[in-house]
Amino acid sequence: MRRPTIADIAERAGVSKVAVSYALNDRPGVSAATRASIKAIAAELGWRPNSAARALTGARAQAVGLTLCRPARTLGVEPFFMELISGIEAALADRSYALTLQIADGAGTEIEIYRRWWGEGRVDGVFLVDLHITDPRVAAVAELGLPAVVVGPPGVSGALPTVWSDDAAGVREIVQYLNVLGHRRIARVAGLPHLAHTAVRDAALREACREAGLPEPVVVHTDYTGEAGASAARGLLIAPERPTALVFDNDIMAVAALSVAQELGMDIPADVSLVAWDDSPLTQVVRPPLSAMTRDIHAYGARAARVLLAHIAGERVADVRQEHARLIPRGSTGRPPR
Amino acid sequence: MRRPTIADIAERAGVSKVAVSYALNDRPGVSAATRASIKAIAAELGWRPNSAARALTGARAQAVGLTLCRPARTLGVEPFFMELISGIEAALADRSYALTLQIADGAGTEIEIYRRWWGEGRVDGVFLVDLHITDPRVAAVAELGLPAVVVGPPGVSGALPTVWSDDAAGVREIVQYLNVLGHRRIARVAGLPHLAHTAVRDAALREACREAGLPEPVVVHTDYTGEAGASAARGLLIAPERPTALVFDNDIMAVAALSVAQELGMDIPADVSLVAWDDSPLTQVVRPPLSAMTRDIHAYGARAARVLLAHIAGERVADVRQEHARLIPRGSTGRPPR
Repeated sequence: MRRPTIADIAERAGVSKVAVSYALNDRPGVSAATRASIKAIAAELGWRPNSAARALTGARAQAVGLTLCRPARTLGVEPFFMELISGIEAALADRSYALTLQIADGAGTEIEIYRRWWGEGRVDGVFLVDLHITDPRVAAVAELGLPAVVVGPPGVSGALPTVWSDDAAGVREIVQYLNVLGHRRIARVAGLPHLAHTAVRDAALREACREAGLPEPVVVHTDYTGEAGASAARGLLIAPERPTALVFDNDIMAVAALSVAQELGMDIPADVSLVAWDDSPLTQVVRPPLSAMTRDIHAYGARAARVLLAHIAGERVADVRQEHARLIPRGSTGRPPR
Repeated sequence: MRRPTIADIAERAGVSKVAVSYALNDRPGVSAATRASIKAIAAELGWRPNSAARALTGARAQAVGLTLCRPARTLGVEPFFMELISGIEAALADRSYALTLQIADGAGTEIEIYRRWWGEGRVDGVFLVDLHITDPRVAAVAELGLPAVVVGPPGVSGALPTVWSDDAAGVREIVQYLNVLGHRRIARVAGLPHLAHTAVRDAALREACREAGLPEPVVVHTDYTGEAGASAARGLLIAPERPTALVFDNDIMAVAALSVAQELGMDIPADVSLVAWDDSPLTQVVRPPLSAMTRDIHAYGARAARVLLAHIAGERVADVRQEHARLIPRGSTGRPPR
């Protein structure tokens, strides 16, 4: 019942595996009659050209790799990665490429995975996501000669091509919108501080507030869990000089903050405005529905895959900037309390 | 910079690729001196045994496959699959196996993917999830001779080994609990009706209600989105003879129903009790936190992977029943209104 191999064909034909290989690859070294007989047996056994065989002769693995380095529970809660993966696969499917996925527990593990995948001919290239401000993976893939595309901000990606979305522009849009509504004290409940895109958003918020003449914003870093988001929001909302608007680095923290504010007897948005980033179906099933930053993550993944395939094919690839996230105001933002 | 191949070594050593293969695999056919020279060149070039080479000689692909056939947006929102994947990978990593993931748009596409993966030597086996009541994949993998393990109820899995959790027992626990609280009219907001585990839960609910002497429960099927859950809950809650307890087939539909009930001016749990299945971090960031059915999905995935690896190794594998989901009562369940 198992997949027929060249060894099976060789045994059935009473010839060597080398002879089978010559025959099936249309190379000289076997007689025409033997070749015909070997091909007939291969067809009868249901043998198909093997990706392994192509890889052995220097051809492609026809697969690319993605490692994710987040706790499984937060990965599952955030729709970002599944949407990214679905976009990646839509583009890979057009070219019959497969995606090899591995959840890792640190950058060191990720590098070890890349080394193994590449050394064993399992992948032709990889996506790097969640880049750190100082990320050892960038030098590691360059050293391996492993084609890689960074999904994230270009500042920390070395010579690797990146597919990115301008988070600073998104932050400016939020600040301008809140400023027009009359907010002055804006706080940010951010993700992990060592991630490059967190740093980009942190810096952009400080700059946008300065430009708008608003006070220095408070930034609290978290691990993206609802628990951490609730705790950060509670701390901000019970402070004497509390912010009138909170901006969150994912959807679940914003939902948790909504519960916290309601527990504190606050009305949303009359007492405090909330903004989630990214958007997700979750933001629309709570009351009030949450104002959120939205972008086409599926398209982002598909674009990254096309760039990686071009890179693998040896084409020159440049950094690609996708559309940045846009604010969709819903019921959780309004004028600040007087 | 690319990965060194046998062809590179052959060129550098001035011998044939066959000679290199003989030398590196410690087979007769080359002289001791040539073998030593080839091995030295291989080491210098950083050559490593290639999974492709092993696969070609009838050895393993050292990878297993998983196809998911759900819209990306609901996949992302439900933590189930990412937790399952993280459990699968924990067990695969112990044996240096990789996971190939593909999102498909129908059972026909899934079969085509299995055929390609298996024909091209990309995987040694696959997981089948989300089995349909009549599922063509079961016969298809058997016909291909592709080792497969079903993650789901055994009734529809033919001769394939299954790793499953007894949903009927979970349903009985919910009904007994609600019955003791005094509920008589229980409704179920279910997932897709063609999925086998949906049918198991539907039947178990009817039977448990009958056994407890409760009226026939209402069951509404949905596509698992928050929107569909909200709509189903609204329909149930505005009906003249409204149920006093609603049980949901995922977390996001239960959260959406909480908002719907609150919009209708209802108090949770005084006016209606809500139960989510499965549990997730989401159920605990809303107010009141949701009573939920919880189970160790990571362990479920790890067990499925170990069974698949044993199956691939040719061991006899039996169906494995994991612990069923248990009810964790939180703030969303209580006595029904008088």
